[in-house]
Amino acid sequence: MKPIVKHSASVQVRTIPVGTDTSTQVLLGADDGMPNFAMRKFSMQEGGGMPLHTNTVEHEQYVLRGRARIRIGDEDHEVGPEDVVYIPAGVPHSYHVLQGPFEFLCMVPNLPDTLEILDQGC
Amino acid sequence: MKPIVKHSASVQVRTIPVGTDTSTQVLLGADDGMPNFAMRKFSMQEGGGMPLHTNTVEHEQYVLRGRARIRIGDEDHEVGPEDVVYIPAGVPHSYHVLQGPFEFLCMVPNLPDTLEILDQGC
Repeated sequence: MKPIVKHSASVQVRTIPVGTDTSTQVLLGADDGMPNFAMRKFSMQEGGGMPLHTNTVEHEQYVLRGRARIRIGDEDHEVGPEDVVYIPAGVPHSYHVLQGPFEFLCMVPNLPDTLEILDQGC
Repeated sequence: MKPIVKHSASVQVRTIPVGTDTSTQVLLGADDGMPNFAMRKFSMQEGGGMPLHTNTVEHEQYVLRGRARIRIGDEDHEVGPEDVVYIPAGVPHSYHVLQGPFEFLCMVPNLPDTLEILDQGC
């Protein structure tokens, strides 16, 4: 493996179809040959977000800018810059942006991930 | 495992003895029960950094603020906000801060890590 240095703006932006005004970039992932885990960046516009869903992998997240209400399990949290979030595998979670753009890093292990939508609200 | 939401400023800051004006925080790590990888934040003051060294685990990094010259292998890179860096396991690297504070996230897998200093320059 070779070292990689790149600006995040150089990475392809992909819309998340099940989200609202939500896109993602795989900053370091399988295509880069990451051996153990991937780094993604999510961007959500004001009023946008993701409906309640589960993933089969855990999320380690760091909020870069903006504010959002995140439901994790049965609890709501309002998060903003420099907040750290851990969402265990299988725990339902949703995002609703209060102040956009809401941007965060989301790291996941190199394991199969299945996303299941639980409702269409966010 | 339970979800975790916390502000990064609430996490203990530890000085890195082999660095210069360098400290770290384990934002999500073994003590939090992370199953696969850890998220750390490093802060280096202007003129500070880390001498050339190797680790036995890879680093996936995201620059939050400041500027630094990073040597990775045989190449120097000047990095700043929103830059993404991948340092493979075993590749010599060093940090010299050009504009501080230089702050970045550094993710590592849950594998044994041995740090070996190669010289005392940075």
